[in-house]
Amino acid sequence: MELLKQRILKDGHVKAGNVLKVDNFLNHQMDVALFAEIGKEFKRRFAGCGVTKILTIEASGIGIACLTAEQFGVPVVFAKKSQSRNIDGEVFTTRVESFTHGRVYDIIVSKKFLSPGDRVLLIDDFLAKGSALNGLCQLVEDSGATLVGAGIVIEKGFQEGGELIRGRGVRVESLAIVDAMDPETGSVTFRD
Amino acid sequence: MELLKQRILKDGHVKAGNVLKVDNFLNHQMDVALFAEIGKEFKRRFAGCGVTKILTIEASGIGIACLTAEQFGVPVVFAKKSQSRNIDGEVFTTRVESFTHGRVYDIIVSKKFLSPGDRVLLIDDFLAKGSALNGLCQLVEDSGATLVGAGIVIEKGFQEGGELIRGRGVRVESLAIVDAMDPETGSVTFRD
Repeated sequence: MELLKQRILKDGHVKAGNVLKVDNFLNHQMDVALFAEIGKEFKRRFAGCGVTKILTIEASGIGIACLTAEQFGVPVVFAKKSQSRNIDGEVFTTRVESFTHGRVYDIIVSKKFLSPGDRVLLIDDFLAKGSALNGLCQLVEDSGATLVGAGIVIEKGFQEGGELIRGRGVRVESLAIVDAMDPETGSVTFRD
Repeated sequence: MELLKQRILKDGHVKAGNVLKVDNFLNHQMDVALFAEIGKEFKRRFAGCGVTKILTIEASGIGIACLTAEQFGVPVVFAKKSQSRNIDGEVFTTRVESFTHGRVYDIIVSKKFLSPGDRVLLIDDFLAKGSALNGLCQLVEDSGATLVGAGIVIEKGFQEGGELIRGRGVRVESLAIVDAMDPETGSVTFRD
């Protein structure tokens, strides 16, 4: 998606440790006009897939998921990162490792919100090592719903997440795949 | 907002301990069509206030904030609940107590995203004891930006948050104010 790539080149910052900071438009400050265009692109790519629900994970996936859901006319469910007193009854749960935050946590979705009749599209801002997305795939599988695919805003193509998730047989559509970045020069190289 | 009140009566569940569960449309599964109507209502109430930015807090405020931001044509910034490796540089920070989760945490916003020239509208899903909203007010004050007001989806009118925040001189617009709820009968009483 050319608009997104241009925005990454303009506003993204490459930091040491394979960090691509896009916090001024994607995951701290959020450009909802851009998110609407992202939502339209996901709709175009997953048109005709019969999506009934969008599943994401808190927190930075939620905004993109909501603007995408507007295009599909379906609800969003977000997986929560720890058991909260406000969630009662049974949940689907799995374990996820966060490399950004250096910890392991449980993600949970209430069983009320994923059913065998659902056709689920996963949405997230980043795909790097794939632990979070893999966990979301697991929750959908556990629920008996059909996994239509995953829409990712930025995939770090030099990390193993894309291979891991595609290796599960999941269709992954990434709007920008970064094949290399250099913290010295600040350069970002996209896959064609 | 009548549409919202009807939805609370239809899909909300009153639980012991002053819990109003609205997780099937507001804060776990999210009805983005309803969120769009909520956004239009906030736009109507804060029209002409010159809002330049919407500030919310992760995670359940983000969806509502994004759909509201679409109406205003401004970006969203969400306060994060703990220091993450992805946030460098200086941040505005304050301490917040979560009664739902029974813990105290820091909320942070990068100084890059709140400036004295901003006119900020706060958005959140719930106002109960007011700790989170009070923290957001503090961040805006610390930044030198102008606080236009706060748009709340559901205010628990029998708890002290509304009084606390209005007592700071902040304009609070709540789309539904619950004055009483009864876990025995499941009844919800709205303020007129």
